[in-house]
Amino acid sequence: MMNHPKEPVSDTPCPKSPHLDSVRVDLVRFNILLFDGFETLDACGPAEIAGKAPDRYRLGYYSMRGGVVTSAQKLEACTRPLEEMSPGVLLIPGGEGTRTLVDDAGFIERLRRAALEATVVLTVCTGASLLAKTNLMDGKNATTNKIAFDWVASLNPRVNWIRRGRWVQDGALFSSSGVSAGMDMTLAFIAEDRGVEEAERIAGRIEYLWNRHPDDDPFAIS
Amino acid sequence: MMNHPKEPVSDTPCPKSPHLDSVRVDLVRFNILLFDGFETLDACGPAEIAGKAPDRYRLGYYSMRGGVVTSAQKLEACTRPLEEMSPGVLLIPGGEGTRTLVDDAGFIERLRRAALEATVVLTVCTGASLLAKTNLMDGKNATTNKIAFDWVASLNPRVNWIRRGRWVQDGALFSSSGVSAGMDMTLAFIAEDRGVEEAERIAGRIEYLWNRHPDDDPFAIS
Repeated sequence: MMNHPKEPVSDTPCPKSPHLDSVRVDLVRFNILLFDGFETLDACGPAEIAGKAPDRYRLGYYSMRGGVVTSAQKLEACTRPLEEMSPGVLLIPGGEGTRTLVDDAGFIERLRRAALEATVVLTVCTGASLLAKTNLMDGKNATTNKIAFDWVASLNPRVNWIRRGRWVQDGALFSSSGVSAGMDMTLAFIAEDRGVEEAERIAGRIEYLWNRHPDDDPFAIS
Repeated sequence: MMNHPKEPVSDTPCPKSPHLDSVRVDLVRFNILLFDGFETLDACGPAEIAGKAPDRYRLGYYSMRGGVVTSAQKLEACTRPLEEMSPGVLLIPGGEGTRTLVDDAGFIERLRRAALEATVVLTVCTGASLLAKTNLMDGKNATTNKIAFDWVASLNPRVNWIRRGRWVQDGALFSSSGVSAGMDMTLAFIAEDRGVEEAERIAGRIEYLWNRHPDDDPFAIS
């Protein structure tokens, strides 16, 4: 299991729920799953984008057991345990941590239940490897990181893996190519959820050049 | 001052220094300054990029007093206190937190000392407002977020503010336009530090379409 308990070596604990004081029940949860070895931008790019629509999405960061998890880029993030997560959008980043988590039956089963409850699931990069192992992607179109493509695809051949695609939408499942592609996908999700003008507004606010064509994938390896 | 002490409401404190066990003295410190209300992508985009050159850069996340700081997108990040920071590259993100920090004389003075010790300073978005208040940008060319441009520029008219520019380099000072532009700037810094091939390698690894022309600024407001 991930998130091994850490020694209490600091006086500054993770705050328990500092922004739960102002819950708005009309907000859609935008739940981000973190784990040790998650890729920073896989999670933080989509968080930046969804966070620019605070009247629509309420962001939360979760891990299996809660507490501090460390990204591949050494960012230590506070999380709440998955058991405290209310259903909504579920974003699953990739990163080196997926390499061991795909073989963690307890984690995969817990993820399966969280994904079943979610209204929409977004995977970024090798985050698709984790969802593929739950079998919830069987028969669906999806893509993943292009450098790690063969590894991810080998984990579940019942998924219709799309080799060329910045991102792929199949119903309520959005999956993106590597790292940065998660931002393009998240804008596409927002365009569907709130309209393309809202996606364009957000891209402008963060001065982001949105690659808005899902088939425009300059990093595909043919 | 920022980083008000938080109530110890959780059993999971920030780990003190989990990756200090394997210090390599030949690595360049890539120090990221965080504060309450920092813009997530301003910090995490450059972190993603520098983190893809682990043989060159050692990432660290700092705040005035250390402990947990919360981004504008509700990401709670563990930091170490500035007094523990060793000189190297210093990255200063922007975000809504800058609006009050520009008037925090203690913070600005501490930042001034940190920037004086740094070998290179990178500002993203309204992070330039903080550095401008230290007076260390006086007489230098710099840019900032385009929507907040007039506010930032008003803080210190002795800076030569460049209204059109994805990023601007003036010697060891790099400053970028808003949010996403910090990634383009960080790749430009790496191109100068390690060669353009290394910047291209990293952009490819994270499937990022690098906007490599500093004057190509589609978000400039004329």
